Amino acid sequence: MQGHARLFGAVEAGGTKFVCAIGDESGALHAEARFPTADPGSTLARVRDFFKAGCGDFAPAALGVACFGPVILERQSARYGFIGNTPKAGWSNTDVAVMLSREFSCPVGFDTDVNAAALAEQRWGAARDVRNLVYVTVGTGIGGGVLIEGAPLHGLMHPEIGHIHPRRHELDMNFTGICPFHGDCLEGLASGPAILARTGSELQHLDATHVQWEIEADYLAQLCAHLVLTISPQRIILGGGVMTERQFPLVRSRTLHWLGGYIDRSEILTDIERYIVPPALGSRSGVLGALCLALDARANR
Amino acid sequence: MQGHARLFGAVEAGGTKFVCAIGDESGALHAEARFPTADPGSTLARVRDFFKAGCGDFAPAALGVACFGPVILERQSARYGFIGNTPKAGWSNTDVAVMLSREFSCPVGFDTDVNAAALAEQRWGAARDVRNLVYVTVGTGIGGGVLIEGAPLHGLMHPEIGHIHPRRHELDMNFTGICPFHGDCLEGLASGPAILARTGSELQHLDATHVQWEIEADYLAQLCAHLVLTISPQRIILGGGVMTERQFPLVRSRTLHWLGGYIDRSEILTDIERYIVPPALGSRSGVLGALCLALDARANR
Repeated sequence: MQGHARLFGAVEAGGTKFVCAIGDESGALHAEARFPTADPGSTLARVRDFFKAGCGDFAPAALGVACFGPVILERQSARYGFIGNTPKAGWSNTDVAVMLSREFSCPVGFDTDVNAAALAEQRWGAARDVRNLVYVTVGTGIGGGVLIEGAPLHGLMHPEIGHIHPRRHELDMNFTGICPFHGDCLEGLASGPAILARTGSELQHLDATHVQWEIEADYLAQLCAHLVLTISPQRIILGGGVMTERQFPLVRSRTLHWLGGYIDRSEILTDIERYIVPPALGSRSGVLGALCLALDARANR
Repeated sequence: MQGHARLFGAVEAGGTKFVCAIGDESGALHAEARFPTADPGSTLARVRDFFKAGCGDFAPAALGVACFGPVILERQSARYGFIGNTPKAGWSNTDVAVMLSREFSCPVGFDTDVNAAALAEQRWGAARDVRNLVYVTVGTGIGGGVLIEGAPLHGLMHPEIGHIHPRRHELDMNFTGICPFHGDCLEGLASGPAILARTGSELQHLDATHVQWEIEADYLAQLCAHLVLTISPQRIILGGGVMTERQFPLVRSRTLHWLGGYIDRSEILTDIERYIVPPALGSRSGVLGALCLALDARANR
């Protein structure tokens, strides 16, 4: 029965759906459930029920929660482990991590969904050979997780790279953008809903000659160039529903344009196909990231 | 004579001038010399001569070199401790750190001038209470050093934040910018020479009503907002010859504009006077940063 002590719980807490899983140190998942995100009370009750049923008499060795943001990550804060002020109705100031830690008497790792996805890609995916990387998701919103020397970047709070202001593309000067905070920040211009607002379609369903491909690639390339110049990662992973194979050559080419030959590193100048890459774990990066948080919480307890 | 073992050498290697000093763990400097940057051979000979004369029969416990960039920081590189490809005539691919380490048989810490300045501000200056910070210098160029959990950020190479592309200010649409790589990147728009190219004057000598104040503050504020959204520092220090007291309220106000209320942290929303600050060490941050590199090289040897 000793073996049960090495089972870990993973929670991918998304704004649309929750994924709960029980896994081990190899990244194998032994049980999994997914359900839509409802109000906090009933949603978190389903999380508890899943682990109580799945683990039987044995508490998980640790839990990890990869959470939609913003989240409170400062250990010294009275609200550590909470979701902060979010537009997601009912979820502002919700305790997620502390409640689970009490319930299961085990360490709980807690971080943003994108920091967790970066951990999973570093441990099992597209960044196994590097320690500094950025994982970007381009979907309903645009977010980024950052690992520095293998550890998620926090600082004042956590990166919110979706809200930088790229220069407007010359063929996209009239669209006002859809971000409720900034209008035409990156998320307001280049997220899935922003593409839909302009074209009435998802990007992948637009003809290959549609100008939106070029516009989208330019905005994401400005993000990549900006990341190179500020965080200096060893790899950038671009994932999320808006990213398709066709986008990558366009984004890479425009990133080189924005860097203008200034960053004199072969990784960028000659090997950019291995520098800006798709995720290796696809849609599994969230729940596997939560598993990484659980493994790290156990190791650091 | 045992005391001599705790003297450290510091070299601020700038594109215009070198500063050499001998100091101790308290940050006190016991001897100092400064001389213009000439060719590498004669300049580095003066560095060697200074430490040989200053230390007498005793080798320094360690040396630190805070160097103009770009520099090679990857330990596994055959060119570790070198200056990379630089427009500074004669200095491309110059060994600085390894040569000194051999000469004095001691550990040599080596990093960018701005990463070193960040270390000094964290140890003795304006960021003693935080572990994650950005030190920006706005002068002949624009550069930034980044500490994450107290350690200089490297990654693929090191941050080059001066070359991000801010949005053009509506009253500054015609200036083409002076960066040889990018034209109108931040350095091309907001460095000292860029201000001079537009106005024929240094910023501090322009009338307080001159529009250049507003333009400059807006570009630096876009940098600050980008740093908050990507690196999430606990403090931003703005130094260098272009920064004067008058600039700070303007930059802070525009930073809040660009963030648009999105980053819900009191450090920014109500305490921005303590978030975006001038350096406490002024023009001493470079040489004291080099001393920090020496202290860290000794500690980590």
